[in-house]
Order: sequence, then structure tokens, then C-alpha cells
Amino acid sequence: MSKQRIAFIGAGIMGAPMAVNLLKAGFRLNIFSRTKSKAQAVIEAGGVWVESPAAAAADADVVITCVTDTPDVEAVLLGAGGVIESARQGMICIDMSTISPQVTKQISSSLAAKGTVLIDAPISGGQVGAIEAKLSIMAGGPAEALKKVRPILEAMGKSITHCGRVGSGQMTKLVNQVMVIHTIMSISEGLAFAEAAGLDLETTLAATSAGAAGSHSLTNLAPKIIAGDFKPAFMVDLQLKDLKLVMDCARQIKQPLPGTALAEQLMSSLQAVGRGKDGTQALVEVIRHLGQNR
Amino acid sequence: MSKQRIAFIGAGIMGAPMAVNLLKAGFRLNIFSRTKSKAQAVIEAGGVWVESPAAAAADADVVITCVTDTPDVEAVLLGAGGVIESARQGMICIDMSTISPQVTKQISSSLAAKGTVLIDAPISGGQVGAIEAKLSIMAGGPAEALKKVRPILEAMGKSITHCGRVGSGQMTKLVNQVMVIHTIMSISEGLAFAEAAGLDLETTLAATSAGAAGSHSLTNLAPKIIAGDFKPAFMVDLQLKDLKLVMDCARQIKQPLPGTALAEQLMSSLQAVGRGKDGTQALVEVIRHLGQNR
Repeated sequence: MSKQRIAFIGAGIMGAPMAVNLLKAGFRLNIFSRTKSKAQAVIEAGGVWVESPAAAAADADVVITCVTDTPDVEAVLLGAGGVIESARQGMICIDMSTISPQVTKQISSSLAAKGTVLIDAPISGGQVGAIEAKLSIMAGGPAEALKKVRPILEAMGKSITHCGRVGSGQMTKLVNQVMVIHTIMSISEGLAFAEAAGLDLETTLAATSAGAAGSHSLTNLAPKIIAGDFKPAFMVDLQLKDLKLVMDCARQIKQPLPGTALAEQLMSSLQAVGRGKDGTQALVEVIRHLGQNR
Repeated sequence: MSKQRIAFIGAGIMGAPMAVNLLKAGFRLNIFSRTKSKAQAVIEAGGVWVESPAAAAADADVVITCVTDTPDVEAVLLGAGGVIESARQGMICIDMSTISPQVTKQISSSLAAKGTVLIDAPISGGQVGAIEAKLSIMAGGPAEALKKVRPILEAMGKSITHCGRVGSGQMTKLVNQVMVIHTIMSISEGLAFAEAAGLDLETTLAATSAGAAGSHSLTNLAPKIIAGDFKPAFMVDLQLKDLKLVMDCARQIKQPLPGTALAEQLMSSLQAVGRGKDGTQALVEVIRHLGQNR
């Protein structure tokens, strides 16, 4: 059986290296992106440029979407010139964006009417994970369809978890984002407090990293804070987009999340002062600022 | 040079195994504890029971206190029958309790008047760390004095960090507790949200542990939550004691900590319903409860 032909939609900082990894793994691939210039690296790696999502999907077995937000996914899958126009029995769509779990279920129903299965498969691991094909992929959808596309996912990620039926991948990603924002709060309040108390931050990091305070954020983002490096591993704008999805969903399922809500509000203050493109570790600046008049 | 004689004050779930490890390492040791029965294991391991902190310190080179809160340390060091009555030039006190950094500095001054140096050396690592001599020790005080007692600390811990002058160990421990409480909030809101959404918790844990959401709490406490195990690795009562120290200190140095304050308030609801002896992972029950009427 020859390898599937893939339609890849979206060539952002995540999508472009993911598409390149698929080409490296020997898949044939059509590429569409709102901004053609962003797809340059994918085209150079052997991707075939097409003029619309519908055109991308026309001769493809599997469609992958990796765009920003819920309306973007709706537009490229169900809108005019969208994938739905080429959807047919046996085609599988994989949405790797982080979007609303509820809308994911609705999109799945629309595609199902054409015989096309949707797998939601949002990712974690950042740009480095995308480049190195080491993403964590949280997948929702029928096990049989997931089995068919697993080699495709394995060309982009190192851990692929089947979380349940369609929407479960998105839901798991939102849980992931809830947990992440607290660890960013953890290092932001911890380091701002240490600093205000006059402690040496390097020493504080050394004393706390190995124990109960340990987290991925403490290991990876705290050194950036200490170095004054606010370049994004993950952008404030995107974190806030994800936290809005979290809070919308939390309201819908009636599970209050007071800590997440507080963190979202504090982080939105970075966006308010024009720092939406900073890395999420800039949250420490908000906490510092609360004590600025001391 | 023969090994120092140690006066050990406090035989709680941390102190008792720490004193036993000192005896195993070949130190001679006097033991005093408010409740004699708690010191039984230390006496059996070769510790010499004495009737007061002053008596414990009379022939000791080094005094170690490992009691609960700030007033307890003040009482055993400076109160009637306290260590101060036997304090003299060259004696070193090591306070391994978690108490107020400010009061630590005051106690240090009182002891200094008798020529006795205080090192604050609070610990992290829990009962298991105490038993296995794998504690993380955050030490504040003069480098020279710390050098003299380092072999003693090494008999109880695996990581000893010199954080700065007296009080810095306590301050670093408070920073540690700020960071810890956020990671407990992280798993509490994350798992309550996942549960309310109908996700399988084991799968969610597998999908999130390896990535950016990772934390010591996710690895060590989340499986307990999933198993419904609320036995303490660290008790709610003690966490709240530490968080009160944090918030008192934060007010004093004028560094607002909104996330920590929220977490403290939510955790205090466990104490309010008589669950102060549960492990800190019981915070998930408070978050669940917020959504109980759904």
C-alpha cells in the first residue's frame, strides 16, 4: 500500500515544520496557507502549492488543518472553497489546531454527512517540538480512523494518546493548558516574591528545582526570567486564546476554575500593554508590577 | 577531631527519623521532645533523653530544632528552660523548622549576644525524605558556621544550598511553598475540569505528564487523586501554616501574591470542614465542590 497523499492547511510556526517532517517521511503533500510566502519552506521541501482548501483536499486521502482559532478551522473546513467541497467517503480530516471541543463536535457532524471522519489532534511541545518531530498529540475520534493515520502522526510527534471520541483531544488539550498556566503562575509569583525579598534568584532556583516545587516551567522558563529573556516559547496572545476556550468550556460544563480565571485576568494585562507577542514567562512582570510602589 | 555532640529538639514525623539518621552516622545525640513517647525510636537508636532544651544543649556543640511553628522555636530556644540558658561562645544552633524569616533574624540576634550562631535550615522532601536522608536543606547564615555543620546536614539531606545570610533559608523555603501551592492548584483544577468534562483521568494524566504541564505534583499527587487517596504526604494544616507565613511576609515586603492568596483561601475550606489532616492533594475536592450543583 503506497503512502497516503496529504492536504496540509496552515503554514504557521507550527504547521510549516510539521508539513516538512511529513515530506521528509515520504508522504506526498499539497500545501495551502492564507499567506503563500509562509509556505515557502514546505514548497521547497517538495510540497505542491494549491489555491484553496478544497483544491488541497481534491486528490488527498487525509487532510490536516493547523490554523489558529475556532473560526479559522470552521472557515477552511466548512466555508466557501473549504475542504467540505471535496469531502467524500473514506477521507479523514485531522485538525491539529487548538479550538473549541464543542465546535469540534459540530464540525465532525457536518463532515460525517459527506462520509468524512474528523479526528481532533491538538498538539503540545512548541516550535522546537514541531521542528524535531517530538510533539505530544492528544487525539479524539474513532479508534479505527486513528489507526489509519497513526503513521502520519508519528512523523510529527513522539507521543500520540487516544483520549476518546471526537472532541476529547481538544478537551485534553484544554486540561493541559489549565495545568500549564498554574505552573507559569507558580514561577511568576515565586520569583517575584524571591526578588522582592532580596534573594539571589540563581541560588533560589537551584534550591527549589529538585523538590516538590519542580515543574516543566520552573526548569524551562524560570532561567529565561532570570536572564530577562521574554522571547516567546509560547506567546501570551496564544495562551490567552487557549484560556478563553478553557473558560468558555468551564462555564458550559459548570466547573468553576477560580485559579485559571485569575491567571487569565492577570495575563491579559500583558496584552493590554502591548506585550501579546512576548513569551508567557512575561507573567512575572505583571506580578512584579503589583509591588512596584514598594 | 571527634564528631560533634548534638542536642536535637523535636521528635515529630520529620524530627524523629532525622535524629535517628544522625545517630546512624555516628553522632552522639541528646533528645528532647514535648511528648517523650514520640522520642522512643530516637532513644532506642542511642539518643540520650533529657528533660529540657537547656539540658539538651548543656554539653552539646550543635543544637538542632525541628518543631512546628514560630512560637515553638521561640519557646525552645529563648523561653524558660530554653537553649539560651546553655548558650555560649562557639555553640551553633540549626533551626530546621519552617518559621518566619523576620523572627529568625530576631532569634539570631538574641543568640548572638551569648556568642551562639544561628543557622536557619528549613527542609523540603517530606517524611520519606527524612527517613531516607534525602531532604533538600535551604540554609541561611554565616558560611564559616555552615561549613562546620555541613557533615551534620549531609547525614540528613542530599542537597544543601547556602541561600545567604540568616533568614535566607526560611525565605527560600517560603518561595518554595509559593511555587508548590500553585502546582497543587494546577492538578486540582486540571483534574476537576477533566472529570467534569467526562475525560478518562488515567489517559489525561498520560497525555499531559510528559509535556509543558508537567510538575512534581502531577507526577506524585495526581495518581493519588485518581485513586481517591487523600492520605498526607504533606498535611493541609501544615501547608496552611506555611502559607500564613508566606502571606505575612508578602505583606511585610509589599509584594502582592494574588494566586497564592486565592489558593490559601480555597485550601482553608478543607480545614473548615475538618480535613486539616488530609494531604494537600485534597484541594481537588474543593474545586470539585464548586461545581457540585451541575
